[in-house]
Amino acid sequence: MPKAFASAFLAAVACSFLMSLVSPAQSKAVADWTASDLEQLRQVQTAALRDDYAYQQTAHLTDNIGPRLAGSPQSAAAVQYVADELRKLGLEVRLQKVSVPYWVRGEERAELVGYPGQVPGTQQKIVVTALASLDNATPPEGITADVVVVGSFAELAALPREKVAGKIVVFNEPFDHSKVAAGFALAAYGEAVAYREDGREAAARAGAVAALVRSAGGAEFRLPHTGETGYDPKLPAIPAAAVTAEDAELMARLAAQGPVRLHLVVTPKLLPNVDSYNVVADLKGTAHPEQVVIVSGHLDSWDLGTGALDDGVGVAVSMEAVELLQRLHLKPKRTIRVVAWMAEETGAFGARVYAKEYAGDMANHFAAIETDLGAGHPLGINVSGDDSLLARLQPIAGVLQSSGAGVIRPDEDTGVDITPLKVAGVPTFSPIQDLRTYFDYHHTAADTLDKVDPHELQENAAVVAVLAYALANMNGDLPRKPLPTPDWLK
Amino acid sequence: MPKAFASAFLAAVACSFLMSLVSPAQSKAVADWTASDLEQLRQVQTAALRDDYAYQQTAHLTDNIGPRLAGSPQSAAAVQYVADELRKLGLEVRLQKVSVPYWVRGEERAELVGYPGQVPGTQQKIVVTALASLDNATPPEGITADVVVVGSFAELAALPREKVAGKIVVFNEPFDHSKVAAGFALAAYGEAVAYREDGREAAARAGAVAALVRSAGGAEFRLPHTGETGYDPKLPAIPAAAVTAEDAELMARLAAQGPVRLHLVVTPKLLPNVDSYNVVADLKGTAHPEQVVIVSGHLDSWDLGTGALDDGVGVAVSMEAVELLQRLHLKPKRTIRVVAWMAEETGAFGARVYAKEYAGDMANHFAAIETDLGAGHPLGINVSGDDSLLARLQPIAGVLQSSGAGVIRPDEDTGVDITPLKVAGVPTFSPIQDLRTYFDYHHTAADTLDKVDPHELQENAAVVAVLAYALANMNGDLPRKPLPTPDWLK
Repeated sequence: MPKAFASAFLAAVACSFLMSLVSPAQSKAVADWTASDLEQLRQVQTAALRDDYAYQQTAHLTDNIGPRLAGSPQSAAAVQYVADELRKLGLEVRLQKVSVPYWVRGEERAELVGYPGQVPGTQQKIVVTALASLDNATPPEGITADVVVVGSFAELAALPREKVAGKIVVFNEPFDHSKVAAGFALAAYGEAVAYREDGREAAARAGAVAALVRSAGGAEFRLPHTGETGYDPKLPAIPAAAVTAEDAELMARLAAQGPVRLHLVVTPKLLPNVDSYNVVADLKGTAHPEQVVIVSGHLDSWDLGTGALDDGVGVAVSMEAVELLQRLHLKPKRTIRVVAWMAEETGAFGARVYAKEYAGDMANHFAAIETDLGAGHPLGINVSGDDSLLARLQPIAGVLQSSGAGVIRPDEDTGVDITPLKVAGVPTFSPIQDLRTYFDYHHTAADTLDKVDPHELQENAAVVAVLAYALANMNGDLPRKPLPTPDWLK
Repeated sequence: MPKAFASAFLAAVACSFLMSLVSPAQSKAVADWTASDLEQLRQVQTAALRDDYAYQQTAHLTDNIGPRLAGSPQSAAAVQYVADELRKLGLEVRLQKVSVPYWVRGEERAELVGYPGQVPGTQQKIVVTALASLDNATPPEGITADVVVVGSFAELAALPREKVAGKIVVFNEPFDHSKVAAGFALAAYGEAVAYREDGREAAARAGAVAALVRSAGGAEFRLPHTGETGYDPKLPAIPAAAVTAEDAELMARLAAQGPVRLHLVVTPKLLPNVDSYNVVADLKGTAHPEQVVIVSGHLDSWDLGTGALDDGVGVAVSMEAVELLQRLHLKPKRTIRVVAWMAEETGAFGARVYAKEYAGDMANHFAAIETDLGAGHPLGINVSGDDSLLARLQPIAGVLQSSGAGVIRPDEDTGVDITPLKVAGVPTFSPIQDLRTYFDYHHTAADTLDKVDPHELQENAAVVAVLAYALANMNGDLPRKPLPTPDWLK
């Protein structure tokens, strides 16, 4: 987030903070936190800013275990590892069974085999990576077809069917770097990822034989970005892959000169479902053990990199929240439940199982936190729920402001895995993070440990730990506000 | 180059420019350029800043022809293409035969097959790319050995032989980003590339079975940087490859925890020599046709990207220098010779052949220019030769200053291909370019057309065209200063 944007928020926050101090409604009630509570929160914050526990956990998950694609042996090892570490911290650990699809990448390559000015006997390499879905492979020998490059869904829709039928559609919608620079990285990602999610179906509907999507990311280092793509059983199951920004541009330039023919091989497979697990680990509350504050990240990752930013760090800061409390001998009044979600990337399978199993116990879910946007410097806390939550959290902003994380803002995007809880009315939270470089690495081979800044990770751990402990210990109740179920969760 | 650095140069330049205007030595002689000459140079500059010829040439060389590895069909097509284009411009074109090694990349992959904390049945992928050399391949099935990670040649030399013998040495010398940021990109590259050039021999001398070198580049997007590596027939011919910065760091972290075992497959081949060519094209001088001003870049590239920055742009701006003169009907007094050098990357073979053939004609080589560091904004002109050249070129700086390229500075690095001319005493020149991002892309798959900023390319074309025409038309002679032959040219 750019400084100007942050400053505006801080000014707004300071103002509402002052107002909340003098609010008659507040002064009548018991304060959510006593001075002594706030002092404990400062103690947690200070300890977090010096702790390397989260970094060590991220290092083990990424360097030693490696990529943790749902269903893979590494994801199984990660479940055991995190469960063991949380047991070592004295938590009550449960492995919640989640049946997950096990998608495995196969061969993947592509070459332009015909194009204007081609030197006889040569080809141009196109860097591709398969997108995860059902029935998404070419035959082993690949397919060969002319490409049609479009800049948008609208441009595809405007083409007569005979211009698309039998061809490979290339969606060349550029990632909007200016939005990222302006602090709206998620908006830029949202625009780009629509093509990754829906491009396959749109191309199939138009009669294409495959869909290639320009990578939904910010960097231009010939890096393809993987991810999930849609599947509609009513449409032909055509192969879909991501190409790099460079290769999408190359095809666009060449196609403007004349016919461009591509040979594409992607042979991913969907293996039979595998039993995997959410790690669910409770640090029992002393006063209200039945009431739960979830602190979470997702344990699975894509396979190209080692899933450091997405989402090794999210699991690691969640683990650190309880590590800090145990080390500091601080006892939460409510139960703090660390959850390492399984199979977020391939369809939020762990989150769905959790929501189903605990459907009858939602009233005891006091709050939920997820960290799933890397480990860039946190500016504060995103809050989804009733508007009054913003004022209620101002004392916490006061604590966090000393590490530059004093912003409390409303934002519905608090994390995929806690969406079912949010829909059920549970107040949900996530750190507000600096996302300027996150989408450069997200879902690529370059999502590796070196991208994690150890100090910024500490800052994130501080936000998450302070928030979790504050929610677990607050005196009052939180208002609940059920929200509409998003399409993907229906 | 950062602004502060540039400003210091500009101040120095402005000062010496003023001094040169009042220099008695200069005022006695005929001026190198008349006011009318300088007016023509401004005309060339203005036209260059509006011309897209160089961009169109770069686009054809990279998009339509593609990578131009010496000896490849694409390099042969590029020779014919450039020769034809220069003939179309009315030049007298000669193809100068150069026998070149034809190195071809084979399979390349690597995996960590044993390391601390490894999940049974899994491996960690290591991104590698072969370095070009003689006898540089593993057997088709690869080799498997433990790795020894060192930070420097000195660290390797300090290890007892039994710690290295039979192992794979990983040179993990980080690229010095702070030097790049401070304007010393070539120094940073020089330090890093020493390991690419000499790492194989150092590892072989120490008894290693292979050498892996951290990529000599600035970016950290899991991109390996290829290039040439040394060959010493007295040493065992061990495989050598580059790994990405991320993978070098991963191996260093894991090796600090315990033994790390790597499986490496690189199967490049050196095919029999191929007849290729320097394109040598003359725009004949009207007054001194026997005197030659060379304007040049190299036509071959590495194979991972399409050789846009290295060095499609160098050939393209050289072609544009004569295109501009022809279009503006400007006649040089001396011959302007466009040279598109062959096989610079694999050993400057074209440059060697040219120097040998023209050894007896060096006196007629008035000056030589090469552009081989991309197309970043040019700040002026690097000059190698007698110190008096700096003052002599000040009127040209005066012209170029309007596009921010008014710096004239001494620098021996004017280009690999014109080094034999420089050694023989010919004054040599190159644009001073902003190199802040050049080594991020250099020798990687990301060296593609989109990395060329069209306007900055025009600025470079302006510098090269103005300088070439100024040298071809100047009244005086230039002092000559033979220089020692560098080791690589002996």
